Amino acid sequence: MKAPVQLENLHVVLVRSRNALNIGAAARAMSNFGAFHLRVVTPYEKAFREAVSAVGAAPLLAKAEEFDSLAGATRDCSLVIGTTAIGHRELQHELYSLEDAAKKIRKRLPSGRVAILFGSEKTGLSNQDLSHCHWLLRIPTREEHRSMNLAQAVAVVVYEIFRDGAIAKGKNKLCSTAADMESVNRIATALLEALHISGYIHRRSAATAEEKLRRMLRRFELSSADAEVLLGMLRKIVWKLSQGEEPDSDV
Amino acid sequence: MKAPVQLENLHVVLVRSRNALNIGAAARAMSNFGAFHLRVVTPYEKAFREAVSAVGAAPLLAKAEEFDSLAGATRDCSLVIGTTAIGHRELQHELYSLEDAAKKIRKRLPSGRVAILFGSEKTGLSNQDLSHCHWLLRIPTREEHRSMNLAQAVAVVVYEIFRDGAIAKGKNKLCSTAADMESVNRIATALLEALHISGYIHRRSAATAEEKLRRMLRRFELSSADAEVLLGMLRKIVWKLSQGEEPDSDV
Repeated sequence: MKAPVQLENLHVVLVRSRNALNIGAAARAMSNFGAFHLRVVTPYEKAFREAVSAVGAAPLLAKAEEFDSLAGATRDCSLVIGTTAIGHRELQHELYSLEDAAKKIRKRLPSGRVAILFGSEKTGLSNQDLSHCHWLLRIPTREEHRSMNLAQAVAVVVYEIFRDGAIAKGKNKLCSTAADMESVNRIATALLEALHISGYIHRRSAATAEEKLRRMLRRFELSSADAEVLLGMLRKIVWKLSQGEEPDSDV
Repeated sequence: MKAPVQLENLHVVLVRSRNALNIGAAARAMSNFGAFHLRVVTPYEKAFREAVSAVGAAPLLAKAEEFDSLAGATRDCSLVIGTTAIGHRELQHELYSLEDAAKKIRKRLPSGRVAILFGSEKTGLSNQDLSHCHWLLRIPTREEHRSMNLAQAVAVVVYEIFRDGAIAKGKNKLCSTAADMESVNRIATALLEALHISGYIHRRSAATAEEKLRRMLRRFELSSADAEVLLGMLRKIVWKLSQGEEPDSDV
C-alpha cells in the first residue's frame, strides 16, 4: 500500500497547542496514515521544541511549519475546516459529521489545499479562529463526553479521510475455500456412526437426530481444510469405537 | 446522540500495557465513543494505578477489570479479536481490514461479548496472545510507518465500530447467542480426550495438535445451543471410548 498522493494537499493545523506529547502524537498519527503536512500556529514554544524530538514522527515534525497567525497558516489553502466537539455553541457555520466531511475533503484534495484546524487542548478553537473556516466538522463523540484528546482527534480525522480512497477494498483473508456439501455429508456420516456406536443416538429417534446434526454442521460453514481435518478425526474415533464392538443385536 | 446499548457487549482488553498515559488516553477515547468496558491483563502495576487517577475517564477506569491471564480476561467472550500492525508475521489467522472487522463486530455485538485485544506498546501481541483470537484486524496504516500509538489505535478502532450510527443502522436480527470461550474450551477438552484415546493424537505432537484444534473450533463460531449439543455428543463418545480402555502405558 503506498501513500495516497491526494493527501499531499492535506494540511493539519494545530492552533495554540500546549502539550509536547500531543503534538508528537498527532504527528505520529498523521505519519501512520500518510498525511505529511503539519502546521502549528503560535504553539507553546517549549512544547513544540520538545515535540520535534519525539519518537516515530521525527521527519514530519522536522519540517512542520510554524506560523504567527491563523491567517498565515491558511493563506494558500482553498478550503479551511474547523473541528469542534461542541454542540451548544451558536454556530455560524455549517456543521458536518466527520464521515460526510471526509467525503467533501476527499473531493476537494485533488484540486486544492485543504486545512483542518484543531484548537488548543483547553479551549478548542475560538470564534476568531472559526471565522477563518468554510465549515466545521464534528467527530461523533457521546453527548455526555464530547471532548477528545487532541492527538486522538487528529488520528480519527486523518484515519477517516484516508480510509476510503487509499485502502485496498475487501478482506485480506488467508483465503480458504468453503467445504462443499459432499465433504460436509461425509462428516455427518462419520459423526452419526460414532454417535450410534456410543449410544448417543437411539434407533427410534435416529431420523430426527440425523437431520438436526446435518443442519448443525452446515451452520459451522466449514472451510474445506477444516472439513478434511475433522473427517480424519472422526474416522479415527469411529475406528477406535468399532474395535471390540460387538455385532449389533439391538434390532 | 445517546450511547448505543449494543456497545455494552464490547470489551477493550489491554495486554501488558506499560504506560499510564496510554491507558488513561485509551479509556478516554472509549468513553468518548461509548465503549465502557476496559480490561487489563498484567499491566505494569504503577502505570495502571497512575492511569486510574487520570483526567476524563475516571469512572471507566475505576471499574476497569484486572486479570492475571488473557484466558481469564476472555473467558466470558464469544468472539476474541487481535489487533496487529504487522504484515510480515506468518499469520495463522484470518486478517480483516478495520472497516470489514467493524462490520463483523457490529453484527456480533447483539448476541455475545466481543473482546478486542491490544498488545503492549513495545511488542504488540505475542503469538501466545494470538492463539486466543478468532481472527485479527489491521488498522490501515502506511507500510512505511505501521506502528501506531496504543491509545490512538484504541481511539480509531472504537470510532470505526461506533461510526455514523452504523450501530443503530446495523441489522439487529434475532440471532442465537454465541458460545462463550469457556464452552468452546470444554468442547476442545472433550474432543482432545477422544482423539488421544483413539490414537489420532500422539504424545509427541500433542501441543501442536491441541493448538490447531482449538483454533479450528473457534473458527466454527458456534452458537451456545450448538455448543451444548456438541459437548453432549463428545462426552458420550469419550465415555464409550473409555469403556474397556486399558490403563495408559504409552509414556
